[in-house]
Amino acid sequence: TGAMEAAVANLFSPGDEVLVVRGGKFGERWAEIAQAFGMKAVPLDIGWGRALDPARVGNKIQKKPQIKAVLTQLVETSTGTLYDIEALGKILSETGAVLVVDAISGLCAQPLYTDRWGVDVAIASSQKALMTPPGLSFITISEKAWKLVENSSSPKYYWDFKKARDDLAKLQTPYTPAISLVVALRDSLRLIEKEGLEKVAKRHSRLAQATRKAVLAINLKILGDSPSNVLTSVVLPSKINGEKLRELMQARFGVQVAGGQGSLSGKIIRIAHLGWMDASDIIVVISALE
Amino acid sequence: TGAMEAAVANLFSPGDEVLVVRGGKFGERWAEIAQAFGMKAVPLDIGWGRALDPARVGNKIQKKPQIKAVLTQLVETSTGTLYDIEALGKILSETGAVLVVDAISGLCAQPLYTDRWGVDVAIASSQKALMTPPGLSFITISEKAWKLVENSSSPKYYWDFKKARDDLAKLQTPYTPAISLVVALRDSLRLIEKEGLEKVAKRHSRLAQATRKAVLAINLKILGDSPSNVLTSVVLPSKINGEKLRELMQARFGVQVAGGQGSLSGKIIRIAHLGWMDASDIIVVISALE
Repeated sequence: TGAMEAAVANLFSPGDEVLVVRGGKFGERWAEIAQAFGMKAVPLDIGWGRALDPARVGNKIQKKPQIKAVLTQLVETSTGTLYDIEALGKILSETGAVLVVDAISGLCAQPLYTDRWGVDVAIASSQKALMTPPGLSFITISEKAWKLVENSSSPKYYWDFKKARDDLAKLQTPYTPAISLVVALRDSLRLIEKEGLEKVAKRHSRLAQATRKAVLAINLKILGDSPSNVLTSVVLPSKINGEKLRELMQARFGVQVAGGQGSLSGKIIRIAHLGWMDASDIIVVISALE
Repeated sequence: TGAMEAAVANLFSPGDEVLVVRGGKFGERWAEIAQAFGMKAVPLDIGWGRALDPARVGNKIQKKPQIKAVLTQLVETSTGTLYDIEALGKILSETGAVLVVDAISGLCAQPLYTDRWGVDVAIASSQKALMTPPGLSFITISEKAWKLVENSSSPKYYWDFKKARDDLAKLQTPYTPAISLVVALRDSLRLIEKEGLEKVAKRHSRLAQATRKAVLAINLKILGDSPSNVLTSVVLPSKINGEKLRELMQARFGVQVAGGQGSLSGKIIRIAHLGWMDASDIIVVISALE
């Protein structure tokens, strides 16, 4: 969330219009941050758990060319939904709008090619598929996005991208970084490099498919029309309370699953299958659910 | 620095006047952050390495009652200088101005009694005398300071103190915290609790006095008129280049000391004696220096 705030404070100025894809809690967070910093957040509401239609975004940008950027997710973590960033990037690269992607839960679990796909700003964090404790965030910025940074008048000091860029050239950071986590991250990146980035995404895909087949096999439904490799949202029968189910799974089997957020609270459980989690974890969680 | 930015963004609004004690790099940082957020930073320049005269601050506040706060340090880390926060707090508690103290390097190395001394906002970090890796910051806020928070119109989202307060009541944080560091901190705090807070400060004082006596014994001078328990700034003879001395101490003896910053660059070295450092560390560093 700090990195999301940093992106907003560095890219935009008060009064700027930005388009926000709202299909879950993290889409809503983009809108809240942009509003907190005085931007006009134009919402594109797609429904929680629904796939993003990139053409809809393109139409909106054509009608409102003053929109500076589209803020969205690679995977909307509150529902586990994957958005088609490749198609969206292709459409936006022919416009003046910058594509800002929160890839916090998605990076490495899903393919993401920033340059090839036209992703101008990508945000990630240490604690998801990068298999490092929480505390670090990462941001990439394209040449197109740097132009916005140069013109931004929003207040920032700690988050200042220009200072970070200047220090990065000297292999430094502007302020004291979380060094122990950087050391841990180095080891995680070595593991990922050794396995190969495409194989890491395929491993996540295999676990996701296995989880979904198992959930369907015990006659439960999967949320939405675009489930990601990050997690599987299981729709519960109306007579089952999701929060009670979570407590039971934790108490009886020591298995932790996430609950639903906002309007989905109590109605779904979310089974994560990313990063360190492997096939045996999935077998355990499905057994507990069954 | 993030916590300093959070304090500025939560306490003040654009156009507010704040008084900034400038006696080193971190005093200057307060002014830079306040200016970046649109406040008017009235400087009180006391000279690098010089003690703070609390009465001077009191006079300034009396002349300019529109000043909302005084931003200062417990220990100005760039010079190792201790400021008399107890006396300053007493003076300011009789005015409308709020006292904001960056205690990042000072906490636990020096006594600091926020309530008793009238310190409205105190900022600390994990990586100094709290003996935990960097990545966590802490802020205390008095009732007097909460009134400023309620009226602040500066943009913030990730830093929002109100959200943090509401979540703290549920023993939660608004966004993903650096959990592994919180666990490490718990162990550090247990060590500090076991030793006793006053004894921890006394231990730092003993190391500081030993370091200074040793430095004087090898005919070198100590910077300034108010050295702290955090570190000792050694003034070098003009024929000795501080940066070369640091390299030599590192290469020959594996001993790391800090250099001077800004106008003191090359002219001093800074010997730290806080947190995990103990008497044997001081013996090694003095031997290397000698």
